Formats: sequence, structure tokens, C-alpha cells
Amino acid sequence: MLPIALDAMGGDHAPDVMVEGACRARVEFGIDVVLVGPPGQLGDDHGLPVLPASEVIGMADDPGSSVRRRKDATVVRAAEAVRDDVAAATVSAGNTGAAMASALFRIGRLRGVTRPAIATPIPSMSGPPTVLLDAGANAECQPSWLVQFAQMGAVYSRRRFDVQTPRVGLLSIGEEPGKGNALAKDTFELLSGDALAGPTDATFVGNVEGRDIMSGDVDVVVTDGFTGNVVLKALEGGIGSVLDRLRALIDVDDRSRAAAAPLMPELNRLFTDLDPDTYGAALLLGVKGVSLISHGASNAEAICNALRTAVDMVEVDLVSALGDAVAPPAG
Amino acid sequence: MLPIALDAMGGDHAPDVMVEGACRARVEFGIDVVLVGPPGQLGDDHGLPVLPASEVIGMADDPGSSVRRRKDATVVRAAEAVRDDVAAATVSAGNTGAAMASALFRIGRLRGVTRPAIATPIPSMSGPPTVLLDAGANAECQPSWLVQFAQMGAVYSRRRFDVQTPRVGLLSIGEEPGKGNALAKDTFELLSGDALAGPTDATFVGNVEGRDIMSGDVDVVVTDGFTGNVVLKALEGGIGSVLDRLRALIDVDDRSRAAAAPLMPELNRLFTDLDPDTYGAALLLGVKGVSLISHGASNAEAICNALRTAVDMVEVDLVSALGDAVAPPAG
Repeated sequence: MLPIALDAMGGDHAPDVMVEGACRARVEFGIDVVLVGPPGQLGDDHGLPVLPASEVIGMADDPGSSVRRRKDATVVRAAEAVRDDVAAATVSAGNTGAAMASALFRIGRLRGVTRPAIATPIPSMSGPPTVLLDAGANAECQPSWLVQFAQMGAVYSRRRFDVQTPRVGLLSIGEEPGKGNALAKDTFELLSGDALAGPTDATFVGNVEGRDIMSGDVDVVVTDGFTGNVVLKALEGGIGSVLDRLRALIDVDDRSRAAAAPLMPELNRLFTDLDPDTYGAALLLGVKGVSLISHGASNAEAICNALRTAVDMVEVDLVSALGDAVAPPAG
Repeated sequence: MLPIALDAMGGDHAPDVMVEGACRARVEFGIDVVLVGPPGQLGDDHGLPVLPASEVIGMADDPGSSVRRRKDATVVRAAEAVRDDVAAATVSAGNTGAAMASALFRIGRLRGVTRPAIATPIPSMSGPPTVLLDAGANAECQPSWLVQFAQMGAVYSRRRFDVQTPRVGLLSIGEEPGKGNALAKDTFELLSGDALAGPTDATFVGNVEGRDIMSGDVDVVVTDGFTGNVVLKALEGGIGSVLDRLRALIDVDDRSRAAAAPLMPELNRLFTDLDPDTYGAALLLGVKGVSLISHGASNAEAICNALRTAVDMVEVDLVSALGDAVAPPAG
């Protein structure tokens, strides 16, 4: 397999955490990584190969214009490495919009896909994570786009989490078919047909509500990128706040720490399960390559996990399967 | 003060929990409650006054047509009691849409209000709860409606939670002014003017993201009723799942329970702070009366809390203050 192109300058803790994550992936899992960045600014590269790129797109920069203007940006060069068959996939913890625009402009859309979507795994209380999409690529959506998101999300759930016949829900404000805004109502109609039959091989379970996202009762939750992003960040923020309070409560003094000690193995499992770094990397579905987008705050473990996921998705040939699912019927 | 009209047949545990909640409110806080329901079906009414109403609108019934057709429904009669100066406010844990339609059709909108909105308090990690609106009254919204939601939400934050100059945020997917869907962008423009000056006396802090809702950095979060409802239920579901796992982990065996015992006072405070029953009752802002909507799953304590809130909101004359905030400028 070709190496994974890692945007060495993306994220709050770049480049150090990127280099460390790449080293861990190499040592622990034998993953080949090429660092994309300015060779003189990466510190000790531990002998990892470097693909030179001199410019950096910051978190606050406008994605579209930055990608157009900064042709030697790390995230742009990483996407070109996939396009030019130099790398098998890209991972970036930098500006999400810039990673998306780079993938769109340099790698290109899969045939048949109207709009790529960001798919984010959300930990569920039982079973594999729930795939939420679109988690922020498209602030305004058409019903037909959401149908493709459903198709791609189902294929992703099967390839990444081994869910054989994914249950796909449409995010709305009431379970009955007539509930929701115009987008949800129109999408419900389209998904009630045979859009998820054939290569998608998923079951449309109808409308689901916000509370169902983490319940384990649904494998894929489809919505527009505005709602999806707001919900994703609300869950991350809300659960993070609760866990912070829990940690503070345990750590208040020696007595509390001693009391909590026997519970710590289970508590740590809870913290890990709910940590965005565990499943956090999101995938841009609908481009002709595997493109992962990690949290800006990713630590080395999160980067290592993202690199593993990138390898897995290349190995199971996710991109071809996505293409089959959205392909217009032959004839 | 006139009594509070309680929909005795609304909610998953009606009428028992409603009667119990009303009794607690009377005994503990001296609150006068009138039960609205079929006299023969309320069990032991503990001497509480009953306003007869023979029909019940169920959770799955269509709100609009049910309210139009079932003129003797409990939730309809409760609203009429406010209209007719028989009750000071209404509380219902039944069908939210039916409570809303009853308030709209029977009590009527405040002068100047285009659309009433549901305002729900969300526990924050520091300071008073954050008021989220619209939490589900209007699936599709216009920018000018969101401006009124901001005005009403700010007044509510001040009257209910003593926040003197509420910080109002617009829910979006990025903090920069240009981020979001068309509704968010257009609303941002309107809120950047002096819409929150005058009687509203609030500060527009710009766009906020999902993670800010529980952070304590904002007092009022404004969005459309689709996004608001999805986010509210996602937070309730997500946090509920985490707390369930935490409870299960503590309660797994005697050893765990013994270990956790010294931590329980603080853990119980955490559970209480995050329980929707503590702050859970939502208020319908923009009608000519105080109308509270409780969770369907409310227990007696939640109903008692809702009745207290109803009394408080009547005493601080919330409705007049809302009218002042949304009144078109004189001239």
C-alpha cells in the first residue's frame, strides 16, 4: 500500500503531535506515513519521509479562497499526493473546510455524487458507533443529496463498523412521517422508496429524534450539514462538560481519589468510550479517495487512530463501494 | 393570585402524578392549583378543586385538528381558564403541540409577536441555565421571527434567572459572521443592529456553536424550532445515556456501591443538576398568558417545580415584559 499523507501542520498541536502520531502508527501498526510540510519546520522527523509544502492554512482562514490561492499549502499537497498516486489517503487535523475544499478541487468527486458529506462516528450506548452525516460540509441541502448521504453512510457503517444491514434514520422532530421541516418531509418521501436497496443494502427506519443518536437503535443518522454540525458539537460539548465535572468531583481531594480508586478502571473505560479522540476522525464521503478530518485538538493517539482508520478504509476499498451505492441505475 | 390550571390528563403518568404534584405544590409552597380533567377519573383528588373537561388529547394525536375538534379537551379547557380569568397560568405535560395550539387559539398571541416560541432551560456548567429557543414550536422560521425569539428569550432569562444583561448567541456552525445557513446569516445581520437594545437590554454576542450551549458563556441561544428541538433532544439523550452508564457502573455490586458511597452526595448533585425534571418545564413565549409545557415523563417533583415556575412567572409579570420587548417602536 502507498503511504498515508499526513498534513503535518494541521491542528492545534502541529507539527509535534503529528510527528508523534505518525511515529506511533509506524511502530505500533507498521503504517507508512509521509509527512506533508515545510522540511525545516517539523523538528525531529524521526526519519519519516517528508513531502515538501511551504504554506499553512490556519483554522480561521477562509477555506475556498485559501485553497485556491495557497497552491503549496500542506493540506492541498496532501490531496494532490492522493490524486497523483503518491499516497493512499490523507489525514488532516487542520481547517475542516480547507481539507474538504482540497479534496474536492484536487481529488475530485466520485462519479454520481452531487455533494460530498462529512461522516462522523458518535459513540453509542450499545454496539458500534452511530454514523452521523452530514456533520458540516453542506449548510444548505436538497432532499436528493440527503438520499446520497444515506446511501454513503450505510456503506461506510458496513465497511468501517461491520454493520451488515445498517438501520438508517432521518433526523427530525417527531417520529411520524409528517413531522419536521420541508427538507425532512421531502427526504422522508424519497427514502421511503427503494433508494437504500441494491448495493446500499440498508433499512430505512424512518424519522429519528435527537435522543436516538446515541441510543444504539440506529446505525446511520442523516441530516443537513447545519443541523448535523450543531448537534455534533452540542453532544461533544455537553458530554465533555459532564465528564469534566465528574473528573473534578473525583479529584477534589485525597479522600475522593481514594474512594474512587476501585471504580477507576470502569470510569476510565467510560471516559475513553466517550472521548472524541477514540472514534473522532471524520471521513469525507463522496470524493475519489480516502480523506480523513481529525479534531483540531487531536493528540498523538487520535492521529494514530486516524491513520489506522485511513489504512482500514483503503484496504476495504471503501471508495469503490461508495461509488457503487450512489451510481445511477444502469439502463 | 388565581390558581394555576393543571392539565390533569397530560403526560405519561397522568392523572396520578399530576394530582401528587399539585398536592406537593400546595403543601410545600402554598400554591393553589385547579385540576382540569374528568372528575370521575382523577382518583383521590385530595380535595383539590376540579375544572371539568371530558376529552383527552393523546401524545400521538395531531395537535391542530385535535384542538379544533375536541373542544372539551383538558388542555383546551386549561387554556380557556386563563383566557377567562379563572386561572393565572397553565401547566401541561401532555402533547406539546396540543398545549401550544390551545394557548395560541384560546389565549392568543401577544400584540406584536409574529410566532410564539418554546423556551427551554438547559443546565449550564457554571451559573444559571441557558435558555434555548425555539425548542420546537416552528419547524421553519424567518429571520425576523428569530429576532423576536432573541428579545423574548432575553427578557425570560432576566425574569426567571435574574440575569441582568443577558448574553444572546445565535446558534450556527462557526463563530465568524459569515458562517451558517441562509437563516443564520440573515438573522446575524438583523441582530447586529439595535434589536436587543431598549426594553430587551441584552447583548448580542454573535454566533455560538453547539458546544457553547452548556458552557455558561451565553445566557440565551436562539435558533429555529427544528434545530432547537433536535439539539435539545440530542443533549437530553446523550447526557442521559452517560449518567445511566455511570449509575450502572456504581451499582454493579456491593464493592462498587461501597466505594462510591463517599462520593454520592456530589454525584447526586450532578445527577440532579442534569435532570430535565429539575429545570425541565419549557415556557411558551409570545402568548397572552403563562403557559408551561412539561416533559411527558415528568414525575411529581417535576410537576411541582413547573407549578412553582408558573407562579413565579405570573408574579414577575413576565407576559407584560415580553410585550414591551417585542412592541414595535412608537412613533
